[in-house]
Amino acid sequence: MEMVLKPIGVIRSPFTDPHKAPRQGSKSVVRGKLVVEEQYRDALLGLEKGWKIVILYWMHLAERDVLQVHPRNDPTRPMRGVFSTRSPKRPNPISIDTVEITGIEGTVIEVEGLDAVDGTPLLDIKCVE
Amino acid sequence: MEMVLKPIGVIRSPFTDPHKAPRQGSKSVVRGKLVVEEQYRDALLGLEKGWKIVILYWMHLAERDVLQVHPRNDPTRPMRGVFSTRSPKRPNPISIDTVEITGIEGTVIEVEGLDAVDGTPLLDIKCVE
Repeated sequence: MEMVLKPIGVIRSPFTDPHKAPRQGSKSVVRGKLVVEEQYRDALLGLEKGWKIVILYWMHLAERDVLQVHPRNDPTRPMRGVFSTRSPKRPNPISIDTVEITGIEGTVIEVEGLDAVDGTPLLDIKCVE
Repeated sequence: MEMVLKPIGVIRSPFTDPHKAPRQGSKSVVRGKLVVEEQYRDALLGLEKGWKIVILYWMHLAERDVLQVHPRNDPTRPMRGVFSTRSPKRPNPISIDTVEITGIEGTVIEVEGLDAVDGTPLLDIKCVE
């Protein structure tokens, strides 16, 4: 089975250096934008300012062939398998983040709580349950 | 940029019919197995019985070109964009589920809390933060 992802848009964020971006899943108050492709406009119906949403994105700068890491990049911590961590290094470098919608204009969604670097391909948006 | 996913294993679950599986993100007590491919054995180091983990999987039976749905498959509810729902129908049909490890033997992880159908390609395992 071929599993090829389609970018649904791009993340605009103040982070340009992945080493300076917050860790995956951490609490961030950083603001940025989800610039969704025009062809997916109809898929945004129902999203509103104030909602929390889950976004999935492709960590395009991450290595995919690393199986073990020092947790939190701390060399004093013993190596762990990437599947027991939140390291960006993993076979499928997909990150999950929960952000709050602070505004919507057309297909551009302003959000707070980002931890992705600028230019990251956006894969999905889901409501929080 | 090409974004091609690699299956890291397969989910074994009692559900064979996607219409009978629990909704994405719902509370499930269903038990099943994550059968991880041998080549990713080293990436499992550190996972332990009792841990909660986040799994990502590919909803291989879901349609990818539907942009709006009736929430919860209820035709009396007004149509919404798939990005404001948890519908499996979406451009990149990746689901997120939190499950608890009830046992590990080699590269087979027994878990509780599944909502995927049997044979679903597994994409990622992350620790819960």
